[in-house]
Amino acid sequence: VIRAAGPQDAERLAALLHDFQTEFDDVTPGPEVLAGRVRAAIERGEAHFVLAPDGLALVSLRDTILYGRVALLEELYVAPPARGRGQGRALLEHAMRLAREQGAASMEIVTSTGDEAARGLYASAGFTNLDGADQLLYYEREL
Amino acid sequence: VIRAAGPQDAERLAALLHDFQTEFDDVTPGPEVLAGRVRAAIERGEAHFVLAPDGLALVSLRDTILYGRVALLEELYVAPPARGRGQGRALLEHAMRLAREQGAASMEIVTSTGDEAARGLYASAGFTNLDGADQLLYYEREL
Repeated sequence: VIRAAGPQDAERLAALLHDFQTEFDDVTPGPEVLAGRVRAAIERGEAHFVLAPDGLALVSLRDTILYGRVALLEELYVAPPARGRGQGRALLEHAMRLAREQGAASMEIVTSTGDEAARGLYASAGFTNLDGADQLLYYEREL
Repeated sequence: VIRAAGPQDAERLAALLHDFQTEFDDVTPGPEVLAGRVRAAIERGEAHFVLAPDGLALVSLRDTILYGRVALLEELYVAPPARGRGQGRALLEHAMRLAREQGAASMEIVTSTGDEAARGLYASAGFTNLDGADQLLYYEREL
């Protein structure tokens, strides 16, 4: 029941993305605009989605000069009523498999210190945020 | 003297990348292999380099479904003898300008808690690693 999504899943994926953004008070152009973007991004090969009954994972890939093909887990979302039953873990594992199949040598994820559920999931799946004795931090700004 | 680099700069860029990786005990296939990769990545539009007399910045761009075009500062390097004289800041500012010109709406950077010089530079250039009261963390694993 967890599978790679295609352009025909754009409406369902867009609805989940919209719920994700709304839950975390983040920007969303609404499900209809998102559905068009999702379909186009899948068709152009810019976005790789995994779809679960109540959630999704979104992976992008880039070819780097030093580290080969790198996968970024852009989004991982499970709707609130379905949490705690393993869909997040299954989505993450499917996303890792999909990235490997697409030739990725590594996967990156950004999360925040306060999201302990996500951090626990990533750590148990073999991800670290350590660089020797240091932690790896993610900075950003609008341009 | 700080400018966008082109394919004709591949050897110089590769030498700097090789020095960067070597200084931080990170992987490098050597300057010659790197030069070929750098040239190809510039020609394909996958890599945008800024070149200073003693350093470089490397920016990649990706089109996201939710956040528009996002720039990632993949590398920022100034050779040790030239540090502390503003080349890093000038490279960062040039990289931000270049990303804006390429249509990027935001820029991302990953660094480590122990690299206080880099963190000070990024903070003074308007970057934050905060998500409300939380810090943003970067996780990774090999696949």
